[in-house]
Amino acid sequence: VSRGAFRPNRIVTLTTDFGTSDAYVGALKGVLLRIDAELRLHDLCHEVPPQDVAHGGRVLRGACPYFPAGTVHLAVVDPGVGTERAPIVALAGDQAFVGPDNGLFAEVLAALGGGRARRIEPTPELAPHFPEVASATFHGRDVFAPAAGLLASGLARFEDLGPEHALAAAARSRSRHAKGGLVGRITHHDRFGNAITDLTAADLAELGPGYRVTLSDGTAVAIARTYGDAPAGETVALIGSEGFLEIAIAGGSARSRGPLAAGGAVRVERDERSSAAASRRG
Amino acid sequence: VSRGAFRPNRIVTLTTDFGTSDAYVGALKGVLLRIDAELRLHDLCHEVPPQDVAHGGRVLRGACPYFPAGTVHLAVVDPGVGTERAPIVALAGDQAFVGPDNGLFAEVLAALGGGRARRIEPTPELAPHFPEVASATFHGRDVFAPAAGLLASGLARFEDLGPEHALAAAARSRSRHAKGGLVGRITHHDRFGNAITDLTAADLAELGPGYRVTLSDGTAVAIARTYGDAPAGETVALIGSEGFLEIAIAGGSARSRGPLAAGGAVRVERDERSSAAASRRG
Amino acid sequence: VSRGAFRPNRIVTLTTDFGTSDAYVGALKGVLLRIDAELRLHDLCHEVPPQDVAHGGRVLRGACPYFPAGTVHLAVVDPGVGTERAPIVALAGDQAFVGPDNGLFAEVLAALGGGRARRIEPTPELAPHFPEVASATFHGRDVFAPAAGLLASGLARFEDLGPEHALAAAARSRSRHAKGGLVGRITHHDRFGNAITDLTAADLAELGPGYRVTLSDGTAVAIARTYGDAPAGETVALIGSEGFLEIAIAGGSARSRGPLAAGGAVRVERDERSSAAASRRG
Repeated sequence: VSRGAFRPNRIVTLTTDFGTSDAYVGALKGVLLRIDAELRLHDLCHEVPPQDVAHGGRVLRGACPYFPAGTVHLAVVDPGVGTERAPIVALAGDQAFVGPDNGLFAEVLAALGGGRARRIEPTPELAPHFPEVASATFHGRDVFAPAAGLLASGLARFEDLGPEHALAAAARSRSRHAKGGLVGRITHHDRFGNAITDLTAADLAELGPGYRVTLSDGTAVAIARTYGDAPAGETVALIGSEGFLEIAIAGGSARSRGPLAAGGAVRVERDERSSAAASRRG
Repeated sequence: VSRGAFRPNRIVTLTTDFGTSDAYVGALKGVLLRIDAELRLHDLCHEVPPQDVAHGGRVLRGACPYFPAGTVHLAVVDPGVGTERAPIVALAGDQAFVGPDNGLFAEVLAALGGGRARRIEPTPELAPHFPEVASATFHGRDVFAPAAGLLASGLARFEDLGPEHALAAAARSRSRHAKGGLVGRITHHDRFGNAITDLTAADLAELGPGYRVTLSDGTAVAIARTYGDAPAGETVALIGSEGFLEIAIAGGSARSRGPLAAGGAVRVERDERSSAAASRRG
Repeated sequence: VSRGAFRPNRIVTLTTDFGTSDAYVGALKGVLLRIDAELRLHDLCHEVPPQDVAHGGRVLRGACPYFPAGTVHLAVVDPGVGTERAPIVALAGDQAFVGPDNGLFAEVLAALGGGRARRIEPTPELAPHFPEVASATFHGRDVFAPAAGLLASGLARFEDLGPEHALAAAARSRSRHAKGGLVGRITHHDRFGNAITDLTAADLAELGPGYRVTLSDGTAVAIARTYGDAPAGETVALIGSEGFLEIAIAGGSARSRGPLAAGGAVRVERDERSSAAASRRG
């Protein structure tokens, strides 16, 4: 983790569970642009399922590391708005994150090598950029967006936004080692119906060059390099683009199969006979 | 309302009922950028339910007032496209609005202290920026986007876009005073399933410091400051982030309860015994 | 087709079937901005139905021609990712297109007068902008976005991105001439429930000034200039904003009527008695 000063590039990304039918996303954008009309706002995702902090965390982990140095990522999935969870700004790698300290940033901060944080408590000089009284239900607009705008515009430095803050420990679901292999679980499905697990390419590399995948109903799943390699309707396992083992039904959706529901177990065992391609990602 | 000249900041926001599956939103953006490739376009909402002018008006009211001076808000929810409703540009506060004069802008113009409008009828100098023949079904692309682009880029002034226009009177649903209190109605639900009413914090402040809320089936609803204050499953009333009384089921959706359907009546009465927190917004 | 050099304006549009719930769109944006933080990204559509290349092609045709000269259109609807379809960049008119050569660009290239293409195979100088090993399942992020960013930023010229490539022939559904008229088909429905056909205004103009429209169940459909001209509930035919004949139910959705399902035939015949207004578009 760099300890140098954060140099904003005026890019702000937005990730929320607000959906795109209400005024909430627009209000965030207005607050950001009133602080600095030249900010470059980029929507990442507003369709995080309502209050699904884990899903929001996965979106941030999958997208934020690609952004250029100096980007501010504003993220609001905040079931505890108005209660005691801390409003924070965090730095990790060369990027910044603004939102609630409820685990939303745990995965991306870990992916970027860990972060350091401040609790948002503006100084008197910055106070005019925040509403006099924050809404009890919309800290995205009244707390997080002003903080993100001030940081991204250079009007405030990281250190100006509040006192040092120890990030809340995040409960991370981790794959478990089992005899001769690993057991992971299906965390979610993407838009194409692929069932994504919490087993990483690195987890599998530890098992050796060959492995086999078994679903909770005992089905053994063939291993493929890409979706197009399998005949339509066949269930295949592959390492997806974000580095996680995923189970796909070629040309179909894995949502429709019982053992591929979210939460389902996926067992991976070493297989000496196989030359499976988990480490060949291209 | 300022009568000074409108000074565009090159920001254009977009609010439509076009959804995000078709080419319509992209066509608007192309037309705007062909007039000025440096315009900064910001999507507010494209998921206004088809032809739901009232919902579009609520999105504009909830988002536009946060934008910086000189912003142009392009909004198209236009069931009467190709018929006699006027295409307009309106100024209110330090912001501009472009779209059909069908009530879409009534709430936000009122919130900004009232507006003045022009009917879009381009002068011969501006005509080359509009198609020779406008589509009868897509004035968003052929009339409103060119007008918004010309105004936002500074290529045209408000006065250049057409003759003065008297805004059509808008039918506004207003809460009704009833014996000892107010009766409002549920206008819609937001993404989180909260039932939003047309009763404002200001309406309630007139009743006094304490009040009680009753649904159409006689249920009395407890008053909370924020969602997190109530145990899961409890129905609570609170002043939402846009200043309207809303009814929420903590950790759940109010859509699923009969008396909380859209259109349902909500009665608010003074309650001397209560020290309810409607005026404490944070 | 201009054979002059492509002069990028730093605008990049994005069209995908990624939806807006996952990290995929955000990853594209990050890759583009890491190449050039000043690129102006504009979402066209991310709700192309999964792997529906024809729908993606219609969105591009309906939106891209409106953009200013020098725009780069990045489009990813790619059922064959990781298999043999070519990754390309194409020029047509004064615009550029980047994505898979699977028919996605056929309609918009034809609308712009035809295009010329290169197969993306970066030179050693450009290789550092691409990942060392591309994911087998996400060429959008690892191949197409870097190529689009390099072209839009001016860091690479069209000719630098790879060798000349002959575009794959696209199977285009075309209307068929039948005795005294034309038979087209309903290709899709837009968000408002209008049934769009593959018959163009130009096709109809060849029939003469008057014509009549018949659905597959024999219903004759009245011809209108715009939706608002017909009484609510009436089925009407009109030339839509993208120049295609469409069948609408005034104030309702054509999805709900059997003969108006996708794939349904629509017959158009010359009608000497009619002075129908197909060529009057507004």
